[in-house]
Order: sequence, then structure tokens, then C-alpha cells
Amino acid sequence: MRETLAEWRPAIDEAIADLVPREIDADYLEEFFGAPTYEYDPTGIQRSLATPTWDLLDRGGKRWRAVLFLVFVEGFGEDPAEYLRYACIPEILHTGTLIVDDVEDGATVRRGERALHHLYGRDIALNAGNALYFLPLKVLTDDQSDLPAGRRLAAFDMLMDELNRTHLGQGMDIAWHNEREVRISTDQYLEMCACKTGCLARIVARLAAIVTDQPAAVERAVATYAELIAIAFQIGDDILDVEHSLGRAGEFGKAFGNDIREGKTTLLAIHAIRESDPDRAERLREVLAAESNTDDEIAEALAIIEAAGSLEYAREHALELAAEARAEIDRLEFDAETTRKLHEFTEFVIERDV
Amino acid sequence: MRETLAEWRPAIDEAIADLVPREIDADYLEEFFGAPTYEYDPTGIQRSLATPTWDLLDRGGKRWRAVLFLVFVEGFGEDPAEYLRYACIPEILHTGTLIVDDVEDGATVRRGERALHHLYGRDIALNAGNALYFLPLKVLTDDQSDLPAGRRLAAFDMLMDELNRTHLGQGMDIAWHNEREVRISTDQYLEMCACKTGCLARIVARLAAIVTDQPAAVERAVATYAELIAIAFQIGDDILDVEHSLGRAGEFGKAFGNDIREGKTTLLAIHAIRESDPDRAERLREVLAAESNTDDEIAEALAIIEAAGSLEYAREHALELAAEARAEIDRLEFDAETTRKLHEFTEFVIERDV
Repeated sequence: MRETLAEWRPAIDEAIADLVPREIDADYLEEFFGAPTYEYDPTGIQRSLATPTWDLLDRGGKRWRAVLFLVFVEGFGEDPAEYLRYACIPEILHTGTLIVDDVEDGATVRRGERALHHLYGRDIALNAGNALYFLPLKVLTDDQSDLPAGRRLAAFDMLMDELNRTHLGQGMDIAWHNEREVRISTDQYLEMCACKTGCLARIVARLAAIVTDQPAAVERAVATYAELIAIAFQIGDDILDVEHSLGRAGEFGKAFGNDIREGKTTLLAIHAIRESDPDRAERLREVLAAESNTDDEIAEALAIIEAAGSLEYAREHALELAAEARAEIDRLEFDAETTRKLHEFTEFVIERDV
Repeated sequence: MRETLAEWRPAIDEAIADLVPREIDADYLEEFFGAPTYEYDPTGIQRSLATPTWDLLDRGGKRWRAVLFLVFVEGFGEDPAEYLRYACIPEILHTGTLIVDDVEDGATVRRGERALHHLYGRDIALNAGNALYFLPLKVLTDDQSDLPAGRRLAAFDMLMDELNRTHLGQGMDIAWHNEREVRISTDQYLEMCACKTGCLARIVARLAAIVTDQPAAVERAVATYAELIAIAFQIGDDILDVEHSLGRAGEFGKAFGNDIREGKTTLLAIHAIRESDPDRAERLREVLAAESNTDDEIAEALAIIEAAGSLEYAREHALELAAEARAEIDRLEFDAETTRKLHEFTEFVIERDV
């Protein structure tokens, strides 16, 4: 996995730089966005788009969405090098969501440095983030793509489906967050993950299938695989937050019991409330609903979650999803090398060590 | 104009409510967004999407983008009632931009009430605004639209062009704003207007041409018309800000000399700096660049703009653009009624009395 990611990284960043150059000039603007009616201002677009975008990209990120796309393309028997522009689509969309999410959450740090809206202002950051929602889709328009019309249209249809559900997922997550109570079912939690995190992964898989013209059944199967690993990834996030916090009060400052502090509805919280005796369940609800909590209260909530066996439950659930994802891939009968890489991806999302 | 707007208003709001119902239920979610993998949470989506969206829509707005679309469709010889869903596309996109713009600008008031991010939180507002960027495009996908594939693809291509340039325009405007200096040309200012305000108007016109299958030359002509009136509208905004401020220091509180206070690059400021003697031009630059200004300094800047004849210049420019827009329509040889309505639109944007 590590090698596949490292191998493709330079080519992917070069391809992204073809779509959003580090240095904006009038020629690029005219070629990529079409002739202006009057006259573009490359300096203004440098400052509002290219500079913040590359600031964030240069801070890191594994580009795994682009790499996963290329692994699929190779598995479908095509030359990945010829599809690099399309590999950038989910990667650039993801970059946009990071910028926008940070504004939504009022985050101060991203990838170890100040969040873009703190560095460039909320207006610049937000407009850059939203620009990155549409910029990569330009790659699919008639003046940029030589794909047959049918595939371009299928790609647009798919993107509109998935980008809509992305916003439903984010909307559910935020709504629950603001409610400061746990009222939803496990299935609704999983749906939120499937939408919020899953849809971007589904874009990776479905786009690879669409641009290489795979049958609908194959597109569905790789989409399911991608959705499953995305949900497993999200659950892994919830587990890590609790694991890192247990018995380490004070050690991580604000990071201690972050999800509980924020009143976040996680798979672990839903499970613990369901499985604990009424008194403990009520106490956990109270802590999650409170406007603010002491470290002792956070530790109490963590202990309730631990005692309910919610960590084991969530871990098992994530492993089951990863196993389902692998089974989905096995049924597709890719070559051994592609199958190995796709299996590795399922471990990558659980282990987070890459 | 007033009658045309009033006549269509109820049907348009009903069509919008078909796409974003006031009350969200599972049936709507499944039908509009597709089957969930697990289970949607209608309550969460009600709170994060439908409630804030209808809060804003119910405050007012003339729905002129939807009405202009319908006037075009009728002018092209089709029954506008059959295209109401498509008329909602630019209207819902516009609603999304209002919400996002208010977050970007840190606005406190919208249509006489508190801006959505103040009422619902920045996360809910921003996600709702962004959701409205993609929700209306779902109307064009294969499971929602019975348009021939070629028209759906042409619509997607067009929307990606225009929505990209919208963000370039907004990016230029914000960048200049943050620079607090006036360094750009008149053509770059007009380009910003053509992108920021013009592209959404172009979407109205081009979409009407595309869904009714008009020749490319007709689509271009109506797009030019729409762009011209949008630029005239934007210049009208700049003129109003100065006109309302001249000689009325203190009367409007913060509204007095707003554009100057914010260091905004307007057509009037560009003209006044170019046409004034070096001392006065430098003084205007200083006031525009300052972090804050006294009312006396604002009044001084306003006086420089007035003395340079910039109001007359801008007014004349806006009138010329409106005349060009009318000429574009005259060449298209619509029926008399459509031509009359489209001429009225050019007055509407200049006069702002509807």
C-alpha cells in the first residue's frame, strides 16, 4: 500500500497542477475556463484560488482517493497513466470539503498548520473550497474531455447523485451534533457515514468504472466496496477518539474525549446507551447533552462506553464491514495484483498507519 | 414586469417545494435522492436543509431568475408550465449563493431578518447553502429528467462552465476587497461582474435555450443579453451606494459610504482614480486602503468621486449595456409580447423598483 501510494504521488500532484497550476496566468485561465468576455485578473485568481489550494495540498495528504482510482483503472485493464486527470476529480473534491468543513466546524488547525480561513480569511477560504467543488468537474465537459458523450453524461449523473447525498450525510451529522441528544438508530448512523464519507469513496470507484466503460454490475460492486471501507474508516475514527482518551485525562489537552465533549453521536455512544443499565445510559446522555463538561465527567462517560463493551462492538463492526468489502472484490475476479492492492486498502483504512 | 413576476410566483414556489419540500419525509428522500443503503433520518435533514432553506425563501425574493427563464421558454414557443422544474434550477442556485455569501461576508442581516448562519449556526447554514448548489442539478439526472440525453449533457456542460466562472468572479472580487488597493482595469472590473453576477443570469438564459433545443447562435445571444443586464445591475448597485451616501453623512449609520468603508473596487472608484488630478486620486486611494475611516474621510472620498463625474460615467455605462442587451433581443425576432417583457427586464435591473 505504502509503495503504491508513494509510486503515484508525484504524477498525481503533477496532474493536479495541470488543473490548478501553482502559478496562474491568463493563458491557463482562458484555456481551462474559456475566453473571458472582458479580461481576467490572474493575480486575483492566484490569491483567491491557487495559493490557498496549494498551501493545503503541500501540507500532506496521501492522495489515496486518486491512487485507489488508478488501481481500479489498472484492474479494469486500462493504462492508469492515461486517466490521471480523472483521478484528480475525487482528490480535488476532497480538498474542497476539507476547507469547507474547517469553516463549518470553526477548526483552527489542519494538517499541523493554521486552517485556511485563519490564514487567508473566511471569504477567500470558503470561496476556494467551493470553487474546488466545481473545478474538477470541468475535466468532464466537452472542451476538456475526449470521452464518448455517453460516458461523460453517466459521470455527471453519478456525480450529482453522490454529491447530493454527501450533503445529506453532512447535514444529518451536523443536525445531530447541534441537537446534543442521541435519538437516532444504528442504521441512521451508518447511513450518515455512507453519505458523508462513503459518497466521495463511491465517486472514486464509480468514476473509474464509468470512464473505462464497465458494466453496471461492476460499477455497483466497486461502489459497494468503496462505501464499506469508508464506513469502516469512519467507525475507526470514533474508536480512535475513545481509545486515545481512555485513562489519559489531561494528557492530550483539548483532544481528550473530543467526541464526547462535542456531544457527537457515534456508533459507540449509540451502542453504550442501548446496552447500559438505565442509570448509566441516562448519565451518558446527560454528559453528551451538556454545553460543557469537566475532565472528570468526560472520564465518567468514557468509562460507561468502555464498560458497555462498545469498543469491542464497534471494532467488530468495522472488521465485518472490511470483510464484506474484501468479499465484494473477490467476487469481481480482478487479477491477483489488483486484488491484493484492494485488500490492502481495507486494512489501510482500519489500521491508519500509512 | 410586476405582473409577470406576480403571475408566476405561486407556481414557482410550488415547483421549488416539489424539489425541497417544506416537510421532509422518508418517501421524498428515497424518491429524490435514491434509496438509502441503511436508513435516512428525515428529522435531521429537515433541520439541516428544508427549514433553513424555506426560512430564507419565505422572507421574499422576486424569483426573477425563474420568471426570466419562463419568459424565454414561452418566447421559444414552448409551454412554460411544462418547464417549471428547470426554472427552479437558477433560483435554487441563487438561494444557495445568498447563504454562502453571507457566511463569507460575515453579514448579520438578510432580507430584513438575521442571516441564516446567525439563526442556525454556521455549520447548518453553510451545508444548506452548499447542498443547494447540487440539489437543483439533480433535476437533470437520468432518474429525474425525461429530456433527451444530448440536452441533459449540454445542460451539465453549460452549468459546469458557468458555475466555475461564478467562483472565479467571486474570487476576484474578494481578492481585490482584501487587497485594499485599486490596481485593476475597467475591463477586469467588468469581467468580475460578468463572472460573479453574470454567470447565474447566463445559466437562466442558456438553460432555457438548451432544454427547448434552440440553435447555438440563439443560446449565445440570450446568454449575452443576460450577462449584459447582470453587469448593468451590478453597476447599478455601485451607483446606488454612492448616490444614497452623498450629502447624507450619519443619516444611514453604517450604510453611509459602505463600499468605500469596505475598500471595495467599484467602477466608480476606478474611474475617479483615473480621472482625478494626482493629489485627489492619491487621497481616494488612501481612504479606500485604510483599515477604518471617519465619516469626514468617507465624505471626502465621496466628493472626489462626485467631482470626477464618475456617477455620470457609471450611469451612462449601465445604460449602454442595457441598450446593447435590448439590441441583442431585437435581433432574435421573438414575438412582440416576449420582446416587450425582455425589454422590461432591462429596465427592471436599472430601476430596481419592482
